[in-house]
Amino acid sequence: MSDAIKQATLEYVTRLGDDSVVLGHRISEWVSYGPFLEEDIAYGNVALDYIGRARMYYSYAAELADDGRTEDDFAYMRSDRDYRNMLLMEMPRGDFAYSQVRQLLADAYATVMLPELVKSKDQTIAAVAAKAIKETKYHLRRSRDWVLRLGDGTEESHQRTQKAVDQLWGYTHELFDMDETEQLLADNGIGVDVSKLRDAWHAMVSEILTTATLTVPDDSWAVRGGRTGYHTENLGHMLTEMQIVHRSHPGCQW
Amino acid sequence: MSDAIKQATLEYVTRLGDDSVVLGHRISEWVSYGPFLEEDIAYGNVALDYIGRARMYYSYAAELADDGRTEDDFAYMRSDRDYRNMLLMEMPRGDFAYSQVRQLLADAYATVMLPELVKSKDQTIAAVAAKAIKETKYHLRRSRDWVLRLGDGTEESHQRTQKAVDQLWGYTHELFDMDETEQLLADNGIGVDVSKLRDAWHAMVSEILTTATLTVPDDSWAVRGGRTGYHTENLGHMLTEMQIVHRSHPGCQW
Repeated sequence: MSDAIKQATLEYVTRLGDDSVVLGHRISEWVSYGPFLEEDIAYGNVALDYIGRARMYYSYAAELADDGRTEDDFAYMRSDRDYRNMLLMEMPRGDFAYSQVRQLLADAYATVMLPELVKSKDQTIAAVAAKAIKETKYHLRRSRDWVLRLGDGTEESHQRTQKAVDQLWGYTHELFDMDETEQLLADNGIGVDVSKLRDAWHAMVSEILTTATLTVPDDSWAVRGGRTGYHTENLGHMLTEMQIVHRSHPGCQW
Repeated sequence: MSDAIKQATLEYVTRLGDDSVVLGHRISEWVSYGPFLEEDIAYGNVALDYIGRARMYYSYAAELADDGRTEDDFAYMRSDRDYRNMLLMEMPRGDFAYSQVRQLLADAYATVMLPELVKSKDQTIAAVAAKAIKETKYHLRRSRDWVLRLGDGTEESHQRTQKAVDQLWGYTHELFDMDETEQLLADNGIGVDVSKLRDAWHAMVSEILTTATLTVPDDSWAVRGGRTGYHTENLGHMLTEMQIVHRSHPGCQW
């Protein structure tokens, strides 16, 4: 592996790990607040799937960095400006409709992205993707069901769900952005050219939203910045909660 | 100073520092949210007064401990279980009425307690108390004015203010508790026997609440625990926010 490829791969798996841990943490904020017990446990399991992905990506990042850092250092010892997750993942929990719409947008993204990532020439990345594909089928079934139920539900649930779609849509453009790092990896068969995936994602999401009697927003606004470390104020507060135990007891063994 | 007195004094000033920094932080949560600019700045100044007291108490605690710790270690490197503030101080900001009622209860307490503390044979404690007395006159005038205005205001402001009084009253009993540490210091002319102050405090608060057309609650319930480290869940979350920068950059100079 050339140095340039290695550095790009380190950056790439850190990004994917950041997406995973941030979304996983947001989902985990629902634990004990689910509308009923089965749903509460289901959501906890989805959170664990994402946090599990983060662990695999960060472990690989630590291996590539080879500077003594561990997966925990990547998760707990970086500030919001160091994080490279896409903004969609860091948006606050919101109400249940908001979280389920975000989940649908993210699950649909994983559904079109992971089958490309699994073809990666990088064996470790391909292995993470292979495991994630199985989880994502279950995730999408669940978020799709919820968006259908809430969108095509009561007047209030419909309104809340449409509002969530409208509020989150502008953060989805970033999902399909490419930069030099990702282009290098795509050209070398390691990363995915996500810019080619928006049509498939848009078709999938539009079909579900329309079935749910919801309106697909136009693309009149877009917010970007996560991949370059320019985050909304939400991430810093979230990391504060997520990191306080580790930062209070650095290196603690138990 | 005997070892027993020294240890008790260290514990005592830590308690007073904890009361000050926790209440100061809660007040600071109103900065930029005040109902108008003058009030916003006034509240920020009150927060600074309390945080200033905390610094003086903690600096003295560090001097007494003489183990290399600084005021910052006392504020930022102790967990909620280590904190010894009274529960009243850690209750969440709530609405404006809630914060002003808590402020009145605390200001009235300072008004009866500080004139005793200023007589302390411990010169450092007496000096902190002397400075705090001047600030407290201004604090009480302000919280008293607000409680009068809100209690004797609109139907909604009256209801909210009465609700705050009812919700906070049970946390005021702890203000007048004594334990062996405080008794030892009171007997030696260093600390205050706060158990003797409740009548004066109750008379002062009752007069203000009654003038504000509010009902003085009975003493049907009481919650205690702060002085022994048994806190409400609110403190841990508050300290997380308060401590994250220091814990993320321990020992940082700027």
